[in-house]
Amino acid sequence: MSAHPRLSLNQATIKYASLADALQTTAAAGIGSIGLWREPVADVGLDQAVRLVADSGLRVSSLCRGGFFTPLPGAARDAALDDNRRAIEETAALADAGAPGSRAVLVLVAGGLPDGSRDLIGARERVRDAVGALEADAASAGVTLAIEPLHPMYAADRAVISTLGQALDIAEQFTSTAQYGPTVGVEVDTFHIWWDPQVLEQIARAGRTGRIASYQVCDWVTPLPADVLLGRGMMGDGHIDFGPMTNAVARAGYTGDVEVEIFNQQIWDAPFDEVAARVVASFAEHVALR
Amino acid sequence: MSAHPRLSLNQATIKYASLADALQTTAAAGIGSIGLWREPVADVGLDQAVRLVADSGLRVSSLCRGGFFTPLPGAARDAALDDNRRAIEETAALADAGAPGSRAVLVLVAGGLPDGSRDLIGARERVRDAVGALEADAASAGVTLAIEPLHPMYAADRAVISTLGQALDIAEQFTSTAQYGPTVGVEVDTFHIWWDPQVLEQIARAGRTGRIASYQVCDWVTPLPADVLLGRGMMGDGHIDFGPMTNAVARAGYTGDVEVEIFNQQIWDAPFDEVAARVVASFAEHVALR
Repeated sequence: MSAHPRLSLNQATIKYASLADALQTTAAAGIGSIGLWREPVADVGLDQAVRLVADSGLRVSSLCRGGFFTPLPGAARDAALDDNRRAIEETAALADAGAPGSRAVLVLVAGGLPDGSRDLIGARERVRDAVGALEADAASAGVTLAIEPLHPMYAADRAVISTLGQALDIAEQFTSTAQYGPTVGVEVDTFHIWWDPQVLEQIARAGRTGRIASYQVCDWVTPLPADVLLGRGMMGDGHIDFGPMTNAVARAGYTGDVEVEIFNQQIWDAPFDEVAARVVASFAEHVALR
Repeated sequence: MSAHPRLSLNQATIKYASLADALQTTAAAGIGSIGLWREPVADVGLDQAVRLVADSGLRVSSLCRGGFFTPLPGAARDAALDDNRRAIEETAALADAGAPGSRAVLVLVAGGLPDGSRDLIGARERVRDAVGALEADAASAGVTLAIEPLHPMYAADRAVISTLGQALDIAEQFTSTAQYGPTVGVEVDTFHIWWDPQVLEQIARAGRTGRIASYQVCDWVTPLPADVLLGRGMMGDGHIDFGPMTNAVARAGYTGDVEVEIFNQQIWDAPFDEVAARVVASFAEHVALR
């Protein structure tokens, strides 16, 4: 089966692969694009990563991830902002190295409540402030920041941004532009937002202001595993009806690559090439991308 | 420590207690009200349950639970509706037996996707239709139906109603009245909705139309346990700031009892009287009810 031309394999789906192996697996499966993660890039160093990406002939669809900027003002927050500035530079360099059609998109996970804090509203305000502190750096690097709403079950300990509407409320406060429209956009990830009664109207809203920076897919499986971070499933193995969201994203004008990003221990334990082949087939069967 | 006069102990917090033991534990802790569950009522039969409640001198704050009416039209859906009609009768009888100030409120959990179905929108429409099919029965029994939004992590397998706004969108379609205002109201449960960026404005909306039928509290603890149904914590053990929600519920005009409902294996394994004493103390310290 040949891969959909807009399919991208997010590297986290084959978590235990080195960058070189992930690039090789992706290309060998006939997939034209890859979503990268900072840790395997750091394992070889940015310069070597850039060479590997350039040699692969693949597009780069995004870099995961920045964010985690909910600490109160002080050293931890300053360190988080500095780290995000490095991530912006990495995003630009890796997208430059990728094949034409690569996207300089940095995915941002907000971060959870600081230890001992119950001030959810304050943490959310600090996310907005941090994005504001990074906007100029991103714009000058030509990088789009994609605020990712995470499922509400992660609101306390991982991401205080829980809905697409909330991510858009932040993104729409920023007016500068990068390569694909606004510098600050949103990540649309089916796993995190499929349950939201407003999901289709919020995708349409994101389209009206050009804020969809990236579209990621995977399924919601039950029962959730003991570690709820690993509760994602291959498309078709769970409860999500992808068609309506995929159609809404298309109608919203998003024409970039579509990433398959799955955190799942059984999938991580499988041979990389088998996983890539399943991704190609499941994407074709379930994601309904024309 | 004396219990808050509006505190109610939901029976699920001491799950392994019989109805008689739950009533005795509640009264002995100085708590004036109890939230009942159908299973322990059924264990002794409704007539005996009514006698036990009347003899206890306690108020009844609600009955858990009806709902689970997402099956497609057919025998399973008919059976679910019949079961809900029995639950309405039980609610009326138990509230009648309770002390003055008892509330004839039946809590409704929507139900998840039918096996093999990915039609979330259709399932949500069937919830609305089922509430419509029960409204007249509830109104004639003087029972308020409380649609409970459950946390989005249960959207696939337990409750397709995931936000307070969505519950209100359904409730507001129904215009008949019962003892406390509209026949169809909503359950406000901190565990399920604390993460929602719209929670305070939706509580205010519920107040404007008199739709708050019940207020339940417990905390959100991390990490979530292997069985996410049991992830609820004693107030103060988790991440929820109760004050803003309690204040919003008060400003919305709700004056009924406030239930503590905790599903947590460690709490279930503790002696009933110790749990009741912790509930009294944690409620006073954290829930911020004046």
